[in-house]
Amino acid sequence: MRKIEHIGIAVKNLEESNDLFTKLFGAAPYKMEKVASEGVNTSFFMNGPNKIELLEATNEDSPIAKFIANKGEGIHHIAFDVEDIVSEIERLKGEGFIVLNEVPKKGADNKLVAFLHPKSTNGVLIELCQEIK
Amino acid sequence: MRKIEHIGIAVKNLEESNDLFTKLFGAAPYKMEKVASEGVNTSFFMNGPNKIELLEATNEDSPIAKFIANKGEGIHHIAFDVEDIVSEIERLKGEGFIVLNEVPKKGADNKLVAFLHPKSTNGVLIELCQEIK
Repeated sequence: MRKIEHIGIAVKNLEESNDLFTKLFGAAPYKMEKVASEGVNTSFFMNGPNKIELLEATNEDSPIAKFIANKGEGIHHIAFDVEDIVSEIERLKGEGFIVLNEVPKKGADNKLVAFLHPKSTNGVLIELCQEIK
Repeated sequence: MRKIEHIGIAVKNLEESNDLFTKLFGAAPYKMEKVASEGVNTSFFMNGPNKIELLEATNEDSPIAKFIANKGEGIHHIAFDVEDIVSEIERLKGEGFIVLNEVPKKGADNKLVAFLHPKSTNGVLIELCQEIK
């Protein structure tokens, strides 16, 4: 794990939240992307070496819709940049973490991703992500 | 805001969570610090340009004790590194954000800090922090 790649924030209305975070960072999102498989619209802000990802549900079954229904808007996950996601999944399984995607899947922003179950990580939903070259 | 300085994670038992995050990062915390004014024991892990701060309450009135009672363990706040906290507070107030500490206070890890109210930031507790030189 080389750095925080991004923090994912669940929002109800992406357009309104884009305006809010543009004021916060003093810069607009550099990218917007729909991830149909996850039922989300996303936007990305750069913050030095890190990114902030805003996530809006596109349907009621989206994990983001369920998260907001349970907990309200707020921080949804932390993603860490890894060099080799397959070996990192193996290492973390060996350390006792519960890996939700033993085979990494294609995520937003040109990444292979896998999540760790919050039950095994002090309530924090952690994403591993490796850039697809 | 130049980067994510750290992510603060509320934990019930700092010793157990130090072990868990040591396994996650493959490295032990570089520092532990008690912040009496906030009622917390903290530990810090380096992760490239970023840090992870674990926070354990030292008494029932600690904001961390209340957070865990309400929401359970998990991500408590995001801290952004700023060059000049006083001018950043002024800028953000002008943009309509609710600043909880109009005069920055001394935080952990040799920082001047100020928080933004989550009501004004999509449910995310945001800390501004400037290193004390």
